Amino acid sequence: MEKDGEMTSQTHYEWNYRLRFQDADAAGILFYARLFDIFHDAYVCFLEELGRPLWKSIETSDTMIPLVHAEADYLSPLRFGDPIKVAIGVKRLGKKSFTLQYSVNRQEDGRMAATGETVHVAVDRENFQSVILPKGLQQALGRFHT
Amino acid sequence: MEKDGEMTSQTHYEWNYRLRFQDADAAGILFYARLFDIFHDAYVCFLEELGRPLWKSIETSDTMIPLVHAEADYLSPLRFGDPIKVAIGVKRLGKKSFTLQYSVNRQEDGRMAATGETVHVAVDRENFQSVILPKGLQQALGRFHT
Amino acid sequence: MEKDGEMTSQTHYEWNYRLRFQDADAAGILFYARLFDIFHDAYVCFLEELGRPLWKSIETSDTMIPLVHAEADYLSPLRFGDPIKVAIGVKRLGKKSFTLQYSVNRQEDGRMAATGETVHVAVDRENFQSVILPKGLQQALGRFHT
Amino acid sequence: MEKDGEMTSQTHYEWNYRLRFQDADAAGILFYARLFDIFHDAYVCFLEELGRPLWKSIETSDTMIPLVHAEADYLSPLRFGDPIKVAIGVKRLGKKSFTLQYSVNRQEDGRMAATGETVHVAVDRENFQSVILPKGLQQALGRFHT
Repeated sequence: MEKDGEMTSQTHYEWNYRLRFQDADAAGILFYARLFDIFHDAYVCFLEELGRPLWKSIETSDTMIPLVHAEADYLSPLRFGDPIKVAIGVKRLGKKSFTLQYSVNRQEDGRMAATGETVHVAVDRENFQSVILPKGLQQALGRFHT
Repeated sequence: MEKDGEMTSQTHYEWNYRLRFQDADAAGILFYARLFDIFHDAYVCFLEELGRPLWKSIETSDTMIPLVHAEADYLSPLRFGDPIKVAIGVKRLGKKSFTLQYSVNRQEDGRMAATGETVHVAVDRENFQSVILPKGLQQALGRFHT
Repeated sequence: MEKDGEMTSQTHYEWNYRLRFQDADAAGILFYARLFDIFHDAYVCFLEELGRPLWKSIETSDTMIPLVHAEADYLSPLRFGDPIKVAIGVKRLGKKSFTLQYSVNRQEDGRMAATGETVHVAVDRENFQSVILPKGLQQALGRFHT
Repeated sequence: MEKDGEMTSQTHYEWNYRLRFQDADAAGILFYARLFDIFHDAYVCFLEELGRPLWKSIETSDTMIPLVHAEADYLSPLRFGDPIKVAIGVKRLGKKSFTLQYSVNRQEDGRMAATGETVHVAVDRENFQSVILPKGLQQALGRFHT
């Protein structure tokens, strides 16, 4: 996955993707679980854009930020080769957790194909107890809080 | 994936799984999207148990039953090698759609690790318009409707 | 993945699998990379059968045993729902590395669908330098060395 | 996956990738099977660059070009976040099949991390019997034949 995103406004990060050959399932459309892979790929690029790449923080930080909830709605079937745009926004920004929202639109006509949400909670790496979000991350996310 | 499930009551189908090496992510715990793979693997075995294997219906039926919604809550981190039990129940059974609910418990101590839901809608294979659920499937699911 | 294998002789471990919905690609057949997932799932169950489960050794051992080579030949297309049998044998057993060979046959008629090999090398967890295979593992694999 | 490749010479196509969070396994390094996913992602972009996108040909052509062989050598461990460059060349170009070779180098210092090969055979979509490669594809690949 290459970083290929941009800030389109104060409130959204946009990331481009083309459906992979192996994203399809035996019914010939996007396997539903792969949408969550795509959300996460966009999230990783979003964090990099925020100056807080996940590959650094999972090595150096005492805080992990696992997902505690995820959901998606599938509006129209996506197929191998379809180019899409994934927009991420910060729906809720708390002291110990935050909620991201995603919308997936076809690049060709802008038609919405899916939406989703993920909830992320800061925890201590050792005991998985809830802790305060790292200050830098909270400030960075704040710029995208609608 | 081998069928390794059983009907534990009138209302649930249970399926066993051990977390795979590649289900983990760079943080060392179950990658959140893989839980939806696991839900679907359990669902495929559930359909087989109902006498309506998906690998037959996707070849022979004019009706497809794609997911239109999926969600999950992650209660405690799962790791490679952890043996789990996935229980499926039919939460809602409509004329054109149904909702399944999942609970994931550790085999060792029964502790719940995750829950989830998926919503499935019957559509015409050609135009993806909503249609009535195949009668046989509706009756089969009815046996699990709480 | 549930353990569902057996020792069929002194020289092979056999493991059963049914192709998953998401193992297919946009062409409707097994995505070639998923065969390597399947090899590894069989390998994990093989190690468990040998009394040396990988989920324990990656936590407790100073030695890691990564793959340095993998290959596969695809003889006939596999599709979602196809039940297969994966046989593992130890082709070569050295002091610092070993080679496993795999054959994949259809459960229904025994027809061979694929074959493969993987080469595994013992390395120090810290510096990835080659080391001697753990004695217990070498003895366990020795029982399967043709 | 976004197209992010270029022709670096008459003989190679280069494609950039950053290892995904979920490409790691429980041992914290690239899961070996994911390298074959990466090869295929690069191959799909290569075909697009050749003017013969796979998402079109699998819908319109009577010829499929499945893989019959794949292999890889792993030279040094790759981790989440590592930026790599995948170079594809045409090693052999026959009338009915061709062989691609891949080399994976770290973007930072150019160090080689992996190599591989895939063999692709043209077959009739209906009966999977070997056929002649589509002329346009053969010509396009010819430009990359060393």
